[in-house]
Amino acid sequence: MTSPHSPAAAASNPAARPTPAPRSHYRRFVPLTTRWMDNDAYGHLNNVVYLSLFDSAVNSALIEGGVLDIGQGEVIGVVAETHCNYFASLAFPQPVEAGLAIARVGRSSLCFDIGIFAAGGAETAARGHFVHVYVDRQSRRPVPLPDRLLAFAKELQ
Amino acid sequence: MTSPHSPAAAASNPAARPTPAPRSHYRRFVPLTTRWMDNDAYGHLNNVVYLSLFDSAVNSALIEGGVLDIGQGEVIGVVAETHCNYFASLAFPQPVEAGLAIARVGRSSLCFDIGIFAAGGAETAARGHFVHVYVDRQSRRPVPLPDRLLAFAKELQ
Amino acid sequence: MTSPHSPAAAASNPAARPTPAPRSHYRRFVPLTTRWMDNDAYGHLNNVVYLSLFDSAVNSALIEGGVLDIGQGEVIGVVAETHCNYFASLAFPQPVEAGLAIARVGRSSLCFDIGIFAAGGAETAARGHFVHVYVDRQSRRPVPLPDRLLAFAKELQ
Amino acid sequence: MTSPHSPAAAASNPAARPTPAPRSHYRRFVPLTTRWMDNDAYGHLNNVVYLSLFDSAVNSALIEGGVLDIGQGEVIGVVAETHCNYFASLAFPQPVEAGLAIARVGRSSLCFDIGIFAAGGAETAARGHFVHVYVDRQSRRPVPLPDRLLAFAKELQ
Repeated sequence: MTSPHSPAAAASNPAARPTPAPRSHYRRFVPLTTRWMDNDAYGHLNNVVYLSLFDSAVNSALIEGGVLDIGQGEVIGVVAETHCNYFASLAFPQPVEAGLAIARVGRSSLCFDIGIFAAGGAETAARGHFVHVYVDRQSRRPVPLPDRLLAFAKELQ
Repeated sequence: MTSPHSPAAAASNPAARPTPAPRSHYRRFVPLTTRWMDNDAYGHLNNVVYLSLFDSAVNSALIEGGVLDIGQGEVIGVVAETHCNYFASLAFPQPVEAGLAIARVGRSSLCFDIGIFAAGGAETAARGHFVHVYVDRQSRRPVPLPDRLLAFAKELQ
Repeated sequence: MTSPHSPAAAASNPAARPTPAPRSHYRRFVPLTTRWMDNDAYGHLNNVVYLSLFDSAVNSALIEGGVLDIGQGEVIGVVAETHCNYFASLAFPQPVEAGLAIARVGRSSLCFDIGIFAAGGAETAARGHFVHVYVDRQSRRPVPLPDRLLAFAKELQ
Repeated sequence: MTSPHSPAAAASNPAARPTPAPRSHYRRFVPLTTRWMDNDAYGHLNNVVYLSLFDSAVNSALIEGGVLDIGQGEVIGVVAETHCNYFASLAFPQPVEAGLAIARVGRSSLCFDIGIFAAGGAETAARGHFVHVYVDRQSRRPVPLPDRLLAFAKELQ
């Protein structure tokens, strides 16, 4: 069987060809600024930067929602999987936005569906997902999603 | 149908659970150093850094193989898709290695299968893929893989 | 003689002890967002990130002022010197602002005086300077400041 | 009086013109790899990256010398000042080296003199300093340099 993360499948299955998503696909938007050093030798945002925008948008929403305390919280989110498809170039100094939705709620994990838009853009310039597993800060073992986090997640579904 | 890049599938299909790969899975290794700022607030390499290691390993192999000239070449590689699964933490100042193999050769694209190892490690701490589409530097339209690039790719299959 | 950039002087001369600057010291402010990966292992913005904020603020002001065209302009700015003193910690997800002023106009160079503030903050959390030398894109040789750039600089003095 | 960190002095005093340093100026060398995303829109290492190399070289030497434990040590180093002058371009995929020396030992601080070389290069492509203040991890108040750190510093003077 070909698994979802199979590189061969990712590159060959026409039915699987990823497509941009419209704004309506997302439940919340986080505005983000770009940086001079984000532009790579080809004059556009380096592919890696998009993942940093994912990371920033997710953690920023969690902190603002009062469900993550980076420095003191007992439960922290560690990343188990990231994925991104690129559809259009963005470049500094263009401001951007990250659209967020929750694609799946697991016992200890959340899968965020994330789109990066030029600020105000109609569809995603890049789109991907980000699986966060929630673990005990000390033991780094997965824990069931705390109630407040679960409530937060359901609002973004 | 659930596509390979589906976030829901990625998080739910047990058959698809990604697993670390051994060194024998890769055809070439690129040594890389970590940086102080790679460690995030949880004291380990931020998830985004791994994608930067992918990017560096692929481009470094292409340049060394004489099939990419960043500044002058007519054909450049742009990233269409990235994916990464994380299995174990790495942290600065630990040196690392990227293992490279080619998972699929398309008409205009290559899908690299990439693993990040602690230097000398037996299996990947993280593993993913990276789809490069080769385009004309000016028009940014896909072009058939140049012969030398094709030969390079076949050696890594 | 002890030169301004002397490390020994920088660390020992009490008369030289750098101090935070108030908002009134700057002529223009550029709002910038922080990123998850900006926080280092000690839970605050890594020192290097501030320099990336300098870089982004300067280039963003130049582009907005119509005096820099990254992709096509004949004259580009390359960095000859950077300096930063750190007074207080900042941390993601806190939004920040860069204050900009021009400290000196040379024949081919500008020295920007830059302060990083917590958004709305009364004094700089970090403060430094950034010397940009303007060069011909092809030859990378210094050129006299173009008239429009000179006019732009005088407005920020 | 014009202080060492004065931007006006930095850009105008001809006596102060910084110059590259030879290898013999440094006491220890740390090899470092460059990354694809280090190259900016002008095709060379972004100025900010050099500061990240400073940071990595200093912390790596401290950890290797057994005088810094990022995760558990009671005393950690926070950065009070950074400075860099740029003399020549470097670019990915070129490997580099950081040369380290201690320019001054304070009561609670060390000023590192740091040079970045193309691997094996005869003189610095960039050169600067980095002032680390050693503080109590909890209170973040400066502490006298621990004995082992002092011994480490004297070896690099």
